[in-house]
Order: sequence, then structure tokens, then C-alpha cells
Amino acid sequence: MSVFYPNGQPYKGKSQAVQSGPASEIVYGHRGMSLEEDLNVTNRYYIETDQAVIYKKPTPIQIVHVDYPKRSAAKITEAYFRRASTTDYNGIYRGRYIDFEAKETTHENYIPLKNFHRHQVEHMKRIKRHGGIGFIIVKFTKRSEIFLLDADYLAAAWDESLNGGRKSIPKRIFQDHGSLIPQKYLPRVDYLQNVCEVYF
Amino acid sequence: MSVFYPNGQPYKGKSQAVQSGPASEIVYGHRGMSLEEDLNVTNRYYIETDQAVIYKKPTPIQIVHVDYPKRSAAKITEAYFRRASTTDYNGIYRGRYIDFEAKETTHENYIPLKNFHRHQVEHMKRIKRHGGIGFIIVKFTKRSEIFLLDADYLAAAWDESLNGGRKSIPKRIFQDHGSLIPQKYLPRVDYLQNVCEVYF
Repeated sequence: MSVFYPNGQPYKGKSQAVQSGPASEIVYGHRGMSLEEDLNVTNRYYIETDQAVIYKKPTPIQIVHVDYPKRSAAKITEAYFRRASTTDYNGIYRGRYIDFEAKETTHENYIPLKNFHRHQVEHMKRIKRHGGIGFIIVKFTKRSEIFLLDADYLAAAWDESLNGGRKSIPKRIFQDHGSLIPQKYLPRVDYLQNVCEVYF
Repeated sequence: MSVFYPNGQPYKGKSQAVQSGPASEIVYGHRGMSLEEDLNVTNRYYIETDQAVIYKKPTPIQIVHVDYPKRSAAKITEAYFRRASTTDYNGIYRGRYIDFEAKETTHENYIPLKNFHRHQVEHMKRIKRHGGIGFIIVKFTKRSEIFLLDADYLAAAWDESLNGGRKSIPKRIFQDHGSLIPQKYLPRVDYLQNVCEVYF
């Protein structure tokens, strides 16, 4: 039996509220995680369960000065971030080469193309030409939805933008041509399910 | 007609000696390059000629402090080198996932196993189990010889060393089971020729 407050909102019994406490704590904790953290935990899970061997590449750094103090570790005292010439993630799954880039956007209905750069788009075109699997993973943070989309759609949007087209990929493209990645406790962002469906 | 000195060595005509001059100049210049530099140039050549897409991963760095000065690039002021959990190089060639580690040794007849570490050996075992191609490239600098050797031989030597066996891989293993990589002007270290012979 449902009970309603005078304003029409359903009454939730005290015990229910208490029960949902710890569960929603976990969910909120999870929501606070960045896509990158979630993917790192997911990839570690894939390696531990021997499903795939996929890693995030280290951030490229231009090292300018290093101190070598006696009896302690070399200390980098001047360095700068460099732009990556490839995507962030690659590895192997069921004998196939896997390559992808992961991005978050706070926009509700699109992701700006400036989240990617030319070298990455060219890299993914090359990967596909050589028989690899290439895609992007995009998290729309407002609704906490994560999609996998084949790199061909990124390349098409990129090329269109160079010819005066829009400077973003609409969420509709992800809904129509991509696939929604299941989010769970473990693995958190189970994108290999989508890779299976789309490429195998 | 061959002409011999009294000691039995063949006589090489003057014109021959002059011809070999410029060629050996190139070789000496080449010898000064590290294996890593040679592989980077080689991999760039493979990408430019669209033969393969293989990159060296950036060195993993633990960043401790970053300054964000106004109107200029973020400056890392404290950071440390971390040990890589995978190999240095990976990518795709003729549809197959490629993974390798490259090392130089000054020892004439062996390479010490301490040039590799446990995570790398485990990583290469995983790669092979998942259908990838995994190997090591080792340069014996004394004679400037570079070999490709399948990762199984590294794993076998590693496991033997844990059971009290020798702490190195003898050059004989490279000569008997590996393959000598051709060194030329371009590409400098043409290891894809060896990959072709060994794995395709």
C-alpha cells in the first residue's frame, strides 16, 4: 500500500529510508569517481580475471631538469606536460588490438570536438586501417551515461567540422550508433560487453 | 681473380678501400645512436610508410607538485620516476597486436636478467596467452648486433633463475632461437622483417 503526503509525494517508511542510506552512500561515492578512475579500476579487473590486457598510457612529460641526490631517488625539478600523439588506452582482447580515448562532458546533448585533437583522430584512422578496433568512450556526466562509439563517427564529425560543419558530436549520434555501457559495482564500466556486441 | 698477401689475407684493391670509406662513415655515425633512438626513428618510418602503428609508451612519472603560473604553461616542480608495469613498446602490425621490450647490454656473451623486471615478464606471458605477439629486442653493443627473441625464452630464463638457474640469458640463445635484425640506413633497425619471418 502506498501512502502519500498532502503534496502528492509518496511517503517512504522510516525503515526504508534507513536501508537506502548505506546503498546510496555507495552510489554517491561511485558518482564522485572520474571516468578515468573508473576505467583504471575496470581495466585492473579485466587483467585480474584474465579477460583482456588493456592499460592507460602514462601522461607524456617533457623533462627539463633532474636532481640526483645521494642516497635517494632521482627528483625531477622541472618538467612540462606534453600533448599525446596517440590515444590514452590500448591493449589486447580476444586476440584483437584495442585502442580508445575516453572523455567526459558536462554538456547534456553533445560533446565538443575540442576534447579530441587531430593526432588522435589520425591515429584512430590508422588503427582501423591496420585491422584494429578503435572507439571513443564518452561520459555525459549530467545523467551519468557512458557510451561507446566507433572511431569512424568521430572521424566523420571531425572531417565535417573542417568543412564548416558543427564543432561537436550530438548525443543523438551516440544513442543511434553507439552503445550504452553498463555501470555496475564490478567491473564499474563494463565496456568489454559492448566491444563484444559491436565487433565480434 | 683473388690476390693474397703472403700471410694469406686477401688483397683488396685501392679503389675498393676508397669506396668502403663513406659507407663505414655512415655505420660509425649510426653506432653512436642508442637502441631507443634507433627504434623511435624506425617506428616513425613504419608509421609514415603505413606499415605498422607502433609507439614507445611515455615514461611513467609520479607527479607530486605542479605550479600554475599565470599566462604560461603548467610547470611540474616535483616528480619522480616510476617503474613501468608493462613493456615499453606496443602497437599493431598486419592486424596483430605487437608488444616488446628493448634493452642494450655491454656484456659480450649474455644479458643479465636484471635488465627486465617481474611485471614485464608477467605482462608478456599474458599478451601471448591472449593471442598477441610478444618479444624482446636486445642490442649487444660490443659487436653492435641486435636480436629479436620471442618472449617465451625470456619467461623460461626468468623461471629458471627463480629455481637457482643462471641470472642471465646467454647470447647463444639469441643466436640459436632468435633472429638477427638487419641494420640499415632506413629503417635503421628493421625488426618488422624479423616479425614477418617468425610470426607470419
